[in-house]
Amino acid sequence: MAYLNVVRVEEALEQLKERFKPLAGYERLDLNRCFGRSLFEPIVANENLPDFRRSMVDGYAVICTDVLGASEQSPILLTVTDQVAIGMKAEQPLIEGTTQYVPTGGEIPQNAEAMVMIEHTEAIGEDIAFYTSARSGEHIVTVGEDVKKGKTVLAKGTKLAPQHAGLLASLGYHVVNVNRKPKVAILSTGDELVEVNQMPDYGQVRDCNRSIIASILLENNCEIVYSGHVSDTFDGLKSVVENALENADILILSGGSSAGTKDMTQMVIDSFEGAPNVFIHGLAIKPGKPTIVGKIRDKAIFGLPGHPAACFITMKALVEPFIHYVSGENPSRIQSVPCIADFQIYASSGRDVYQLVKLTLKDGELIASVLYGKSGMVSAMSEANAYVVIPMNHEGVMKGDRLTAYLL
Amino acid sequence: MAYLNVVRVEEALEQLKERFKPLAGYERLDLNRCFGRSLFEPIVANENLPDFRRSMVDGYAVICTDVLGASEQSPILLTVTDQVAIGMKAEQPLIEGTTQYVPTGGEIPQNAEAMVMIEHTEAIGEDIAFYTSARSGEHIVTVGEDVKKGKTVLAKGTKLAPQHAGLLASLGYHVVNVNRKPKVAILSTGDELVEVNQMPDYGQVRDCNRSIIASILLENNCEIVYSGHVSDTFDGLKSVVENALENADILILSGGSSAGTKDMTQMVIDSFEGAPNVFIHGLAIKPGKPTIVGKIRDKAIFGLPGHPAACFITMKALVEPFIHYVSGENPSRIQSVPCIADFQIYASSGRDVYQLVKLTLKDGELIASVLYGKSGMVSAMSEANAYVVIPMNHEGVMKGDRLTAYLL
Repeated sequence: MAYLNVVRVEEALEQLKERFKPLAGYERLDLNRCFGRSLFEPIVANENLPDFRRSMVDGYAVICTDVLGASEQSPILLTVTDQVAIGMKAEQPLIEGTTQYVPTGGEIPQNAEAMVMIEHTEAIGEDIAFYTSARSGEHIVTVGEDVKKGKTVLAKGTKLAPQHAGLLASLGYHVVNVNRKPKVAILSTGDELVEVNQMPDYGQVRDCNRSIIASILLENNCEIVYSGHVSDTFDGLKSVVENALENADILILSGGSSAGTKDMTQMVIDSFEGAPNVFIHGLAIKPGKPTIVGKIRDKAIFGLPGHPAACFITMKALVEPFIHYVSGENPSRIQSVPCIADFQIYASSGRDVYQLVKLTLKDGELIASVLYGKSGMVSAMSEANAYVVIPMNHEGVMKGDRLTAYLL
Repeated sequence: MAYLNVVRVEEALEQLKERFKPLAGYERLDLNRCFGRSLFEPIVANENLPDFRRSMVDGYAVICTDVLGASEQSPILLTVTDQVAIGMKAEQPLIEGTTQYVPTGGEIPQNAEAMVMIEHTEAIGEDIAFYTSARSGEHIVTVGEDVKKGKTVLAKGTKLAPQHAGLLASLGYHVVNVNRKPKVAILSTGDELVEVNQMPDYGQVRDCNRSIIASILLENNCEIVYSGHVSDTFDGLKSVVENALENADILILSGGSSAGTKDMTQMVIDSFEGAPNVFIHGLAIKPGKPTIVGKIRDKAIFGLPGHPAACFITMKALVEPFIHYVSGENPSRIQSVPCIADFQIYASSGRDVYQLVKLTLKDGELIASVLYGKSGMVSAMSEANAYVVIPMNHEGVMKGDRLTAYLL
């Protein structure tokens, strides 16, 4: 099989978005189970936060003019008329010339304009001596100052993380609708492969690509509905694909390393109704060129390369962004960071080089080192924590160049 | 309660490590379920990878001198004597003056010294024409070249991620021993708090800190054995703490906002045998000063501040690293990145300022913006994706300064 019409990853993603719609459907989860998932719909504030004027300190509520000019040298005395209890309504409006105690989080009485911290006061009999004046609004959170009722506070698709927990809980979202998990089937072909729990015979190797694919899918909230090894026959592969189409939204095939297997994947995909079904015949990336993508019955089917590193890179560069698209997920964490190359690499003509690197923070800069190893080595891959892209027909990367690294 | 002997976070972590040992125990998980967990023991290669000489290409195995000088202009012809099947042993040693076909991943026959890619050859009757010479070892992976038998390939404590999947699977680790989950109890106090699924009465607020704490614990592979709200009475709190000590490795209390609650937490902790049990009386961080830490019956007990932002920061800065320590986890992802401040902030005398920021990649640099909002605002927190630390007694941060940001 020839890969003559290779396309770049960005172009492949555009073609995928033209052909596939985001998946419908959601799950309703308890707040504590929703982290790591993405929002099916925007989160809208149904209430003001706070919904009463709150004190930010333990202290005394005042009308500003009543403590105007107060200082260490000339304190001003005000009579305490009430004490607001935490969690309760402030019963009495504040009357000019008086003060009320309010704890942190307590309601500010009507008419009060500011809070004075207890540290700047002193109790003297029935009265409180104020050693400082107060600015209007000081140490007070007004109604809706944190969140205004009706505001959209989190966008649809937001991947929920601990920094969102306080907002969701404060607004009463004890259950959250999250996008449903894409259902994915993983098939591997290649007669040299044995299961991970088997001892390979001479000339055989364990099927590591299914584990690489599964780990990335699980990290991206997919449900793996099938994972199996298929013998290298047209009929065998076709019947497993047929079954997988019943249950999965996405099929991922990982080729054996032999050329025959690669051809067969395309032949099987194109043996279904609507052929030609394969619409991407190779990616302009290195490693990862022998990648094919097709569509059968509105389901995406990826044929990934057999080399473990190429399988990993195509999963990260192409399949993962597609999964974010179909599942409606918008990552909230930082995905890419600036770094400085500690290596030299030539660009490839006609292919974007995706280079695994190890980033290390040194003197306030992230230094990217290359992990040497021949194509497909699993040991080099395991030390990577990011990758960089060297665009085709670019002059390449020199030591000291500033690059963008994509975090793993 | 006074927080006079405040300690910096690094010092608090040192004190914790002196007083607590990492938790014993592990779980044995299927390979596909181990990602995100950390290794209980190092991963050692029990085999060579590969354990036979493999071809990296589809092509012909040769003895180098047999194709010496071959070129487009003067090809060299060799007779094909065999074809190595994928997944099978190479049956025949290579004889001088002959060649054998070997597919990608196939075994290199004995005596063969290099592979020539099929693209640089042509079949002519029974013979193969070679249009290029070959260097010794070219396109061949030798035995153990990826991983040598006996080598420790992943360190104890490594947090497993997709980049490790290929290695684990190739080495046959279909089950993996991972560190067991720390068991944590979360208790909140504060009479103004209602459950997240309740509608607050006037002056009440929903208990968002328990959700903040739970989300961070879940992200760090903890098992939450209890989560509940305790009424603000000494006996009520003491009995819940007593029960939690039975089941949990770590207790996390989140204070109500009232001063009385804070005192009570310390009183309850110190009412157990072995008092004084509280050994940290305040952290030199802003926000987060009113944090206390104690030890009862070899269990760590944290009393966190009631302000949501302070609760979040102390969880990230103090509790999360402690959980990594006790659970033996060594994060494999990048935790901190360089950034440029797009804001100005004064340092605080006597306290390290932990400032939530939003990082944005702009022209190859990460720009950190401050999220404005009064202390404890949950809306500002929800937009953060990192935090920066402005050390105490430092001159502060000016716009344009280079800083290190810790990713959320």
